[in-house]
Amino acid sequence: MKNFIKRVAAAFCLLVSGLFQHAVAEDGYELWLRYERLDQVPKAAPHSVVAACSDVSPTLDAALSEISRASASMLGQPLKQSGKISRNALVLASGACGTSLPDGALPTVDQVGPEGYVLQSTRINGKPVTLIAAQSDAGVLYGVFDYLRRMSSGDAVADLDVTSRPKTKLRLLNHWDNLDRHVERGYSGQSIWDWHRLPGYVDPRYTDYARANASIGINGTSLTNVNSDATVLTPPYLEKVAAIANVLRPYGIKVYLTARFSAPMELGGLPTADPLDPAVQAWWQAKTDEIYDYVPDFGGFLVKANSEGQPGPQDYGRSHAEGANMLARAVAPHGGVVMWRAFVYSAEEPEDRVKQAYTEFVPLDGQFADNVLVQVKNGPLDFQPREPFHPLFGAMPETPLMIELQITKEYLGFSTHLAYLGTLWEEVLSADTHAEGEGTTVASVVDGEAHDYAYTGMAGVSNIGTDRNWAGSIFDQANWYAFGRLAWNPDASAEDIAREWVKQTFSRKPEIVNEITAIMMKSREAVVDYMTPLGLTHLMGTGHHYGPAPWVDDLGRADWTPYYYHKATRDGIGFDRTENGSDAVDQYAGPIAQEWASLDTVPDNLLLWFHHVPWDYEMRDGSTLWQSLVAHYSRGIATVEEMQAEWASLKGQIDPERFNQVTDYLKIQHEEAQWWRDASIAYWQSINDLPLPEGEAPPPHDLEYYKSLSFPNAPGQGE
Amino acid sequence: MKNFIKRVAAAFCLLVSGLFQHAVAEDGYELWLRYERLDQVPKAAPHSVVAACSDVSPTLDAALSEISRASASMLGQPLKQSGKISRNALVLASGACGTSLPDGALPTVDQVGPEGYVLQSTRINGKPVTLIAAQSDAGVLYGVFDYLRRMSSGDAVADLDVTSRPKTKLRLLNHWDNLDRHVERGYSGQSIWDWHRLPGYVDPRYTDYARANASIGINGTSLTNVNSDATVLTPPYLEKVAAIANVLRPYGIKVYLTARFSAPMELGGLPTADPLDPAVQAWWQAKTDEIYDYVPDFGGFLVKANSEGQPGPQDYGRSHAEGANMLARAVAPHGGVVMWRAFVYSAEEPEDRVKQAYTEFVPLDGQFADNVLVQVKNGPLDFQPREPFHPLFGAMPETPLMIELQITKEYLGFSTHLAYLGTLWEEVLSADTHAEGEGTTVASVVDGEAHDYAYTGMAGVSNIGTDRNWAGSIFDQANWYAFGRLAWNPDASAEDIAREWVKQTFSRKPEIVNEITAIMMKSREAVVDYMTPLGLTHLMGTGHHYGPAPWVDDLGRADWTPYYYHKATRDGIGFDRTENGSDAVDQYAGPIAQEWASLDTVPDNLLLWFHHVPWDYEMRDGSTLWQSLVAHYSRGIATVEEMQAEWASLKGQIDPERFNQVTDYLKIQHEEAQWWRDASIAYWQSINDLPLPEGEAPPPHDLEYYKSLSFPNAPGQGE
Repeated sequence: MKNFIKRVAAAFCLLVSGLFQHAVAEDGYELWLRYERLDQVPKAAPHSVVAACSDVSPTLDAALSEISRASASMLGQPLKQSGKISRNALVLASGACGTSLPDGALPTVDQVGPEGYVLQSTRINGKPVTLIAAQSDAGVLYGVFDYLRRMSSGDAVADLDVTSRPKTKLRLLNHWDNLDRHVERGYSGQSIWDWHRLPGYVDPRYTDYARANASIGINGTSLTNVNSDATVLTPPYLEKVAAIANVLRPYGIKVYLTARFSAPMELGGLPTADPLDPAVQAWWQAKTDEIYDYVPDFGGFLVKANSEGQPGPQDYGRSHAEGANMLARAVAPHGGVVMWRAFVYSAEEPEDRVKQAYTEFVPLDGQFADNVLVQVKNGPLDFQPREPFHPLFGAMPETPLMIELQITKEYLGFSTHLAYLGTLWEEVLSADTHAEGEGTTVASVVDGEAHDYAYTGMAGVSNIGTDRNWAGSIFDQANWYAFGRLAWNPDASAEDIAREWVKQTFSRKPEIVNEITAIMMKSREAVVDYMTPLGLTHLMGTGHHYGPAPWVDDLGRADWTPYYYHKATRDGIGFDRTENGSDAVDQYAGPIAQEWASLDTVPDNLLLWFHHVPWDYEMRDGSTLWQSLVAHYSRGIATVEEMQAEWASLKGQIDPERFNQVTDYLKIQHEEAQWWRDASIAYWQSINDLPLPEGEAPPPHDLEYYKSLSFPNAPGQGE
Repeated sequence: MKNFIKRVAAAFCLLVSGLFQHAVAEDGYELWLRYERLDQVPKAAPHSVVAACSDVSPTLDAALSEISRASASMLGQPLKQSGKISRNALVLASGACGTSLPDGALPTVDQVGPEGYVLQSTRINGKPVTLIAAQSDAGVLYGVFDYLRRMSSGDAVADLDVTSRPKTKLRLLNHWDNLDRHVERGYSGQSIWDWHRLPGYVDPRYTDYARANASIGINGTSLTNVNSDATVLTPPYLEKVAAIANVLRPYGIKVYLTARFSAPMELGGLPTADPLDPAVQAWWQAKTDEIYDYVPDFGGFLVKANSEGQPGPQDYGRSHAEGANMLARAVAPHGGVVMWRAFVYSAEEPEDRVKQAYTEFVPLDGQFADNVLVQVKNGPLDFQPREPFHPLFGAMPETPLMIELQITKEYLGFSTHLAYLGTLWEEVLSADTHAEGEGTTVASVVDGEAHDYAYTGMAGVSNIGTDRNWAGSIFDQANWYAFGRLAWNPDASAEDIAREWVKQTFSRKPEIVNEITAIMMKSREAVVDYMTPLGLTHLMGTGHHYGPAPWVDDLGRADWTPYYYHKATRDGIGFDRTENGSDAVDQYAGPIAQEWASLDTVPDNLLLWFHHVPWDYEMRDGSTLWQSLVAHYSRGIATVEEMQAEWASLKGQIDPERFNQVTDYLKIQHEEAQWWRDASIAYWQSINDLPLPEGEAPPPHDLEYYKSLSFPNAPGQGE
């Protein structure tokens, strides 16, 4: 009878709690930290948690709080914190704090570095326990998030023997957030940094931001736009920065700021910002010391200089290295770094813009101070749906190169197109630079293996905003997630990452995981197909980069126009970057340069990036270039239609809130894919006068219609 | 034993469900529609709900859905919808749909008008029921919200005999929202209108917006800034407007747009926007017809013309009436209206800006078309913490005057100062204009009683944005709420409204309700005290209106400067608006003019609005003006300290999320109140050279410090 009562009560309660769980809006706010209730308690699930430290630091406190939240949600009740090790305890042991564990109970953590950890199923005093051990509290925190990720993914948490350490040192988000809360290239609302109400009001959302980032290993964040405003370096703003840093610190996240190169003039009243001027150097030293008074663990500066109108050392005839080193000297005594962006282009129009960073930076190799990293975009142009990898990777053995990826989808459909960027980034990271012989992947450059860099890092341009779901869409959360996971391990598989994200975000059911992962894995290629197939690039609308505008050929400078990149004439299309053209291909190592320079070996997907070919050029499959181009557009649309159908098949298996939003967004994506195809084809036909390939539907409007569309209020524009 | 089981199970489940209820974040999103669980089921609580209609319209469906949500939350389970009347049924009966009720079962609804309703406890077929009856579905919806408000407030829902009808016809929010989502004078994030993702994505938040507004009787919303952008009148935007209108329609809310007067030139390519030009008239007629194609129940236009740089009829030598009437003719065939703002000031500096609206509009009385309302701010200047009522009220008997209130706190501390505006609005609405003899209150003008207006209305400048809590703070939600309740009944008591808001928002416990209501009731006077006491006005920082700047005297035009309004010299302070000065007081009816013109009778709180007096002027309490002024500043701070202490006493009785946010905001308010006092005193002392009254602390900084503060990124600025 008693058992019966228990069972009835339990069943009834499940019902009730189910009702209330349902009442929690599935609006995406929880990200991948949803910690959905487990169908059954896993083997070796912990009964209690023990922090084997004399003092619980704020970081360990954050770890314990996350365990409490996650276990309450997944197991139905929060794990009890205990001072004693009992059966099935989860034991957190940080070398940083000394532990009360018996000798020999701890695994060695010599190999995990300052941020790695060991997860180990073992016994202490004869009792089975799970150990999370690390050299530092931050390492323990990362281990806790790994452990919770396994549990939340429905993976085994028994018989663990895991060692993990990050392959890069600096794993940063770059917010392009202005102080008025406008986010440049932001498609998810305003900046989450509520500068006006700071420091008096510290939004609890900052803590959730820290949790999410720590859960994927991100350990730094640059708060402000690289198109920078010196105001953030003034005391009222530094007080606000300090308030943010205080929230992020327990989560192992350091704060960085963008340094406006002309700040000594704007704030300091100096007549110059020349980096060799002693007064300028003194100003930066004093300013930096002041910043460290506010934020003792300030990470350092991120700088965009002499690019797109930003001031820089070249204004005074000084080199990028001279500029960077001045700032590097100021932060060095405090252990800070300078991240100097290689995304530069000169005021004069270069012969070929994609060559410029290489041309400017390679000669500077070896001239940068020890605590400077040069931050290089994945490709030589600007975050396009597809670019070859940046030729700087492998070309600066004496200078730590960070890679800069764009999480926010400036060129891939904003937040309403589903495009999983894991595959894009994997393509770049696994590309072989041949710099130190075959197998010198971009990843091996970035993680320091190829050239033994003292500093290593990855930066991701944030897609985070005030939208309730943070990223503007549910699937854009996956890009934030994938960035963090790849920064931890640049050799990780994009598909594995997608899969683990889906499990935590949507469902652990294998058929759902497979279906959604499949959608994600083909999504980026669909965007390439319907926007910029066959190596075409930068055909987006002027300024806002929304929608197609391949016809634009008359902006302030040629290298801002789509025409500059496609060079379509009646005779052919594509940018000749062989020795007959700009010879940009020569910036790559020999085997790569040879492969891409030859029409025989260049891959189709980079054809028009490197070559100008006639419209009737014969592709490997026997079709003409024109036929192939049109087919790619149509294939992009067809892929979106597949994605729509596959998503629709999940109806009833995903909560209605997220299901409906994704459905609506896919519909927008489909319409805009069609628009891209139709507008592009209408334009190419106006140039090449060719009939449409058989079976292809003509654009429903004439070219003038597509040219007439204007979007003065498209989000994310630079200001 | 069975009972025991039941009790154990019930207790256990309560615990479980309690846990999960707690998991729902108290982030303010639910507004006053929290529907907190009732401690006990009230007498006559309904068991089922019956829609006594053959067809359930979208509006009745919305009502049923609200009942379901509210009953699930307050009573633990949603009311069953039934086709049959059973004991304790809640019966919805709309005259609009015909009902299946027996003859004589329905109360007469002749007197409630198209939007009013009757709540009545009665019997049908011998069974006790609660009837919600109305002429229209919208009336039923309002009745449902009234019924739920009573239940949510813990009031009796037995023995009901309530008849209610709105005293004004048009109850509108005015969003000053730009198409790029910037909200002019917005302190709660971005515009909730996500124009870029519309119409493809219709944010579910729009439905919650509609629910909240319908619950307080708001029946219209103007989506766009009065500083207007003609783009909203183009087809792509009208499609987006239609998508919003489709969500709001079931909730009885019509959509209005701001009409840019120069649109015929900007969009139509006409050489003029002269309202007497036939081509201009034809353009507006065609455009209006087009709008009605998209939105068949479009409400009409709101216009700011010839004011602060906006184009208007005076650009062509035409009057406001000629401009308004042109638009009125265009919307008239569709049943639309034009709301023409009286907030004008000419390009030339007037003798006294507060006189201008009266001077321009009174001569036009009787010249406006039947479907034009003139929309008049509560005071003659601009939404200051205190102003006398606008002299137009009572002065235009032939022209329907709407009142325009500012819900967003442009001049009352943005969203971080707690200032309940119900008392400000009550002060204006209950003011006696004496226009038709004693007792002609502003409310009686606005509700049409005084002059028998065909149209009546109230407009509130919205404080709504993307902040999770909608209004930027919890207490700013009360201002949205109070606006709606006063629009329904301009004679309602601000304290009663505060009380009912607190009950629904925070707690039904009388001691909590009393405490919070007391805080609210004194809050606005505190702001007056620490910002602009004794009739001072417009001393805020230039442009953003953040913080004190009484020293500013050199802007583009004199009437933009604080100096223009306070006229402080070594000899005295205040704006002489008697016959010795601008004689603005003469715009008021005789008894009021006499009272305010005389130093013997003018109330202290308008003293410096109407009079220039010496610093040693003797106040009624025997103190000098200077002593009194300083005392008011300090009293303002002291009141905020009281509010802080009273709020702190509620710790543990309010959920931590909202408790902490209010606590933090009150701390900001206290710091800024101190700043206002200190900066103001430092400035006045620089003018009058007087020592501080005894016992008053000197400002901690010199005047130069306060003048040096700058806030380039303060939110809400005009763009």
